[in-house]
Amino acid sequence: MTRLLINRGTFVTMDDQKAEFQGWMAIEGDRIAGIGSGPAPEEEVARATETLDGTGLLFMPGLVNTHGHAAMSLLRGLADDLALQDWLQNHMWPTEAKFTSDDVYWGSALAAAEMIKSGTTTFVDMYDHMNRVGEVVDQSGMRASLARGVIGLCPEDVQKAKLNDAIQFAKDWHGAANGRISVMISPHAPYTCPPDFIRKFVEASHELDLPMHTHMSETIAEVEQNVRDYGCRPVEHLDRLGMFSRPTLVAHAVHLNDEEIALLAERRVAVSHNPISNLKLASGVARVPDLLKAGVTVSLGTDSAASNNNLDLFQEISTAALLHKGVSGDPTVVPASEALRLGTVNGARSIGLEGVTGQLKPGLKADFIALNLSKPHFVPHTDYVSHLAYSARGSDVVHVWVDGKQLLRNGQLLTLDEDKIMAEAERCFRRLRA
Amino acid sequence: MTRLLINRGTFVTMDDQKAEFQGWMAIEGDRIAGIGSGPAPEEEVARATETLDGTGLLFMPGLVNTHGHAAMSLLRGLADDLALQDWLQNHMWPTEAKFTSDDVYWGSALAAAEMIKSGTTTFVDMYDHMNRVGEVVDQSGMRASLARGVIGLCPEDVQKAKLNDAIQFAKDWHGAANGRISVMISPHAPYTCPPDFIRKFVEASHELDLPMHTHMSETIAEVEQNVRDYGCRPVEHLDRLGMFSRPTLVAHAVHLNDEEIALLAERRVAVSHNPISNLKLASGVARVPDLLKAGVTVSLGTDSAASNNNLDLFQEISTAALLHKGVSGDPTVVPASEALRLGTVNGARSIGLEGVTGQLKPGLKADFIALNLSKPHFVPHTDYVSHLAYSARGSDVVHVWVDGKQLLRNGQLLTLDEDKIMAEAERCFRRLRA
Repeated sequence: MTRLLINRGTFVTMDDQKAEFQGWMAIEGDRIAGIGSGPAPEEEVARATETLDGTGLLFMPGLVNTHGHAAMSLLRGLADDLALQDWLQNHMWPTEAKFTSDDVYWGSALAAAEMIKSGTTTFVDMYDHMNRVGEVVDQSGMRASLARGVIGLCPEDVQKAKLNDAIQFAKDWHGAANGRISVMISPHAPYTCPPDFIRKFVEASHELDLPMHTHMSETIAEVEQNVRDYGCRPVEHLDRLGMFSRPTLVAHAVHLNDEEIALLAERRVAVSHNPISNLKLASGVARVPDLLKAGVTVSLGTDSAASNNNLDLFQEISTAALLHKGVSGDPTVVPASEALRLGTVNGARSIGLEGVTGQLKPGLKADFIALNLSKPHFVPHTDYVSHLAYSARGSDVVHVWVDGKQLLRNGQLLTLDEDKIMAEAERCFRRLRA
Repeated sequence: MTRLLINRGTFVTMDDQKAEFQGWMAIEGDRIAGIGSGPAPEEEVARATETLDGTGLLFMPGLVNTHGHAAMSLLRGLADDLALQDWLQNHMWPTEAKFTSDDVYWGSALAAAEMIKSGTTTFVDMYDHMNRVGEVVDQSGMRASLARGVIGLCPEDVQKAKLNDAIQFAKDWHGAANGRISVMISPHAPYTCPPDFIRKFVEASHELDLPMHTHMSETIAEVEQNVRDYGCRPVEHLDRLGMFSRPTLVAHAVHLNDEEIALLAERRVAVSHNPISNLKLASGVARVPDLLKAGVTVSLGTDSAASNNNLDLFQEISTAALLHKGVSGDPTVVPASEALRLGTVNGARSIGLEGVTGQLKPGLKADFIALNLSKPHFVPHTDYVSHLAYSARGSDVVHVWVDGKQLLRNGQLLTLDEDKIMAEAERCFRRLRA
């Protein structure tokens, strides 16, 4: 088995209190075999079948993007500066209604190319034609948690077909791509799925023993509608429907009261915070410092490129670190190290992959990235944790590995054909707009 | 005289309603000689002494960063996640007190390297040892508006020496570097300069016929102190002291009431909005949509790398476009085109350089940048104005010109020695921390 030894690197492991150190890391097959500070021990040097000089590079866990719709990268910049419902109903949904399975493939490939190049190794995706997204994950070498997201505003037979599609997708793809793909069960949102329909997803989640993922409390209007139609706010509503008896990841969770935060903490519901999408659509600012204080696992998502408009998770990390200080008036909330946790280990935890990815630690999968430190914006060397949270950009990433396999080398994609993907994505967009 | 013809490029001029077009641009000496859509006219092709194929590149005006303290790049990441006064008094000021003229030179050179590489061609700087900043501007080829920023919390003789230093700097450097350097007169802030001292700066500004620059209303505490000590809020205070009888650029202006916004508009005071620094220090969120509605010229500043922590103005542009939507609840405020104006033409206007830089237009100085469009995050080609505001990063910039002279080619600095600057900046920081 191959054994890669990286020596003389700078490491930020997200594993312990020792924020950064100079040292070495050994990768055997798809796993991290060892890591330590100082020069690599002689026995590590002897066992290595391959060596990488880590001088000038910072190694950290690959980033985990916990909410998105990859295929919507085809709609980047199509309709900006609009309110969520106008944007969804008059721009996104009509164009998406024309999406073919081919569009989903190329849109997702475009997203995968962008994510790998900016340091994301694991992503959550909720969309349609999910087998095509699965193909992209398989081919790209990324890790992903995928969900057939179902909108239930349709006749019962269509609902049933969609539910069956989601269940079939789970059966076909959970554990696929050498285990890099896991599946979640995903009613789109409480405002787009009737209660009885959501119950069926909860049942499927129990039967298949898979976690759940949904949009929740993204806008005030949606919370008000929930109260009007169902007599309670979304957290209580979903709890009553049994969703939180399953491991659940909710996206957005912008509009929460204290009781809802306490209930999310009690039920161990994870929250995917999507700060840029929430700002762009004027949905509001999630109560992240309060969620963290209550012990809720908060991670970061880009949402789709149509409401972001890129998939650079480093931008989500810095935005999370900055936004909550300014809005709360407390400059100590979401410090640099916490912001990095949101984008790495918390991301893994929120999709059941803690102990698998999100940290550099012996026994974990070798999902890691390397940033080039020889850049003016990383000088001086005061504190690389600070630099990663506040100064880094996805474009600083030069190498990416998932499952011990290198996906990006010196900024070049190794598993995907970037030029072809960009051309095909452009072609798909032209056809959709014709 | 050399005449450069760029053809087959994509252009965003910031000059008119035609947001983007495919076309050509001619540069003669230090100025834009012509620009147009479609193929370059035959006479342009004939007159060119040099040609650049603009295929796959987007050309736009160089960005204008209207508030910063370049030398403080030496303190990047030194003290994060602290309140402004704690950060200033216990971390920044004690370290800065040790700054030598050499530190200012290398810290400013580090900032210049970072700014050029991320597309900024003109910057405002307020600091000490300004002749060394002037040297950096001269050597780097950038354009700058420089101010000796004076804190007046000191004995009268020291005050006098500082004022004389500011005046001498203005006399020595205004118009220097082939006119690329202009000078502003700059009392640091109403809370750090007694009223009589500010009056002397206003007098100097009149005598030298130079504009003024100051920090104003960055924090609530500062506004309260102003009311307590001088019986009015900072805008009225500075107006009473005569500052607004001069062209003035104020940085921050976070805490303003309606009357203050109206007075700033009436006095044609320009505001440098520093969204990232204001968030990081938890100072608050400036009322940018209200300022724009009142007709105030709002531009963008990074502030120093110590409170940002990078100098990538594209991040300021996207943050300005995003933040005010989320905080106001109105997704239509600060649309993409407006955000780009803040970072270009408004920046030029706010320092008296409208008609000189900030747009692509015949007769203006040839200060422009080129971004590489062959990147996944610029696909599909829906709307490049949107992509520039929401998806671009400084690292997309590949070429930079100021005064018709190329400063960056394929991401490589042509006027500055990047490796030497990074090493010297690191050395300065080590000495300051010793």
